[in-house]
Amino acid sequence: MAKMLVFGHQNPDTDTIASAFAASYLLNKAYNQDTEAVALGTPNAETQFALNYFKVDAPRVIESADTEEVVLVDHNEAAQSVANIADVTVYGVYDHHKINFSSAAPLYFLNKPWGSVATVLYYEFQTLNVEIPAEIAGMMASAIISDTLLLKSPTTTPMDKPALEALAKIAGLEDYEAYGLEMLKAGTDLSSRSAKELIDGDAKSFELNGSTVRIGQVNTVDVEDVFSRRDEVVAAMEAELAEEGYNTFVFVVTNILDSDSDILVLGDNLDKVEAAFDVKLADGRASLPGVVSRKKQVVPPLTDAFNA
Amino acid sequence: MAKMLVFGHQNPDTDTIASAFAASYLLNKAYNQDTEAVALGTPNAETQFALNYFKVDAPRVIESADTEEVVLVDHNEAAQSVANIADVTVYGVYDHHKINFSSAAPLYFLNKPWGSVATVLYYEFQTLNVEIPAEIAGMMASAIISDTLLLKSPTTTPMDKPALEALAKIAGLEDYEAYGLEMLKAGTDLSSRSAKELIDGDAKSFELNGSTVRIGQVNTVDVEDVFSRRDEVVAAMEAELAEEGYNTFVFVVTNILDSDSDILVLGDNLDKVEAAFDVKLADGRASLPGVVSRKKQVVPPLTDAFNA
Repeated sequence: MAKMLVFGHQNPDTDTIASAFAASYLLNKAYNQDTEAVALGTPNAETQFALNYFKVDAPRVIESADTEEVVLVDHNEAAQSVANIADVTVYGVYDHHKINFSSAAPLYFLNKPWGSVATVLYYEFQTLNVEIPAEIAGMMASAIISDTLLLKSPTTTPMDKPALEALAKIAGLEDYEAYGLEMLKAGTDLSSRSAKELIDGDAKSFELNGSTVRIGQVNTVDVEDVFSRRDEVVAAMEAELAEEGYNTFVFVVTNILDSDSDILVLGDNLDKVEAAFDVKLADGRASLPGVVSRKKQVVPPLTDAFNA
Repeated sequence: MAKMLVFGHQNPDTDTIASAFAASYLLNKAYNQDTEAVALGTPNAETQFALNYFKVDAPRVIESADTEEVVLVDHNEAAQSVANIADVTVYGVYDHHKINFSSAAPLYFLNKPWGSVATVLYYEFQTLNVEIPAEIAGMMASAIISDTLLLKSPTTTPMDKPALEALAKIAGLEDYEAYGLEMLKAGTDLSSRSAKELIDGDAKSFELNGSTVRIGQVNTVDVEDVFSRRDEVVAAMEAELAEEGYNTFVFVVTNILDSDSDILVLGDNLDKVEAAFDVKLADGRASLPGVVSRKKQVVPPLTDAFNA
């Protein structure tokens, strides 16, 4: 039987990389599958910090899936997946996002609205009675820290903290808060990144009522780190709108210490973005106090506004 | 907060009714929800046997959902759900079928390719550390017996038997095989049912490459119980094709003792049905040796043939 590939979304973040490792290991142990965790891109600075800390090699990067069956983690929509997703069979999905998916046969599809896919997988390991190796537990703990901003994001659920505590213990992380702060800061060193890397870093495309809306996000400890480079960032966004044919580009700059975001918006539908957040864009920019979660606080109001 | 309604598919079977009870109880206990298990139709003879045995009242039948949020069990496709499904928000899905679903926000979506939704829910009770009351365990055990034909259907997985054994124990069922045979036989007394009841009993609609294909199934201990009433059955199928605008009607008559089926097919696309099963229809009828599972052995080959 051909090896099954397990991978997360394009522009991988820590949850996508960690969950690919975790799901691959779980499927091999619990269902006797022969799977390999791979990725659709190289790790970002935050993920690389976690990989170095737990001495894990970055997963192999693939351009297309050359197996018959695949497993998706941290995404379920074709637009965020591997280029040839239509040519392969999805054996399983482990996710925590909105759903836009169809299949020809029953499959494993586990989606729970919890802080990270690593949280969902932690409980699935318990259900299936599989022990988690220390380095995978470390990556999963890093994923929970990353997606919940150390349990402070509004996406945090009561299921996340017990999972993080248990995983930190397995991983031998005595002080996960200190480790987590270090890891999050490693991900916010924006000075070494080009404007294109900033807007692409964690960007995803969403089909909203016929429009393709690109939503990128960076975390920082000072939003002016990004807005001081405004001209450069706008040029990169304009180039991508033209090249990729997106209708709208929403770039979210999040201050992880204050739990606030500023957005920079280009392209069409500016009125819909203003309606979504009840703000006026000034030169494309607006402040969104208390907004840190793309999934919970950015995509749903945009979806509603585009469908209004 | 408004009560949340939990229900299975139209033309409810034992798994749909049992899983609605189980999911409702689980959500109330684990997530502090205020839910009610309801149904989109009255129980069939098999389900009624189980309800009587475990002294459980049949769930209230609804025509439309009058709450903001609903939970779907044993189905995820709008075509099989409540009439006004487009007007309500789906809070969760517990299923074991192919998927055709989209949402505006993350939700609980648990789909596993196991024998019954009751099996999926049994393990979810374990994950969430919720004890199963005896009468709900009895209904869940009945659901596993029903969907797997006492663990003999090809849809049976290694997860089903341990779940059935554990549930039988909780329910105080000392000999689940004897109980199961009695229950299955109670569901195959076809003499009291009209031809319309036979073809509608467990029927579901599927959108296959632009055609609406209606697939009904009855279990029996002798397929001639049905084919001796051929004229009456054909008239009922023709009336429904005309009234409901289905393109094709596939009626599957399954001998649960021999694990074989005969099909009776009316409407368009007869060539596609023949291609799907590699058979020649004689007067609309063909034998499908070894076929007992609509989900695993009828829908996938039909889907492939319609898409070819």
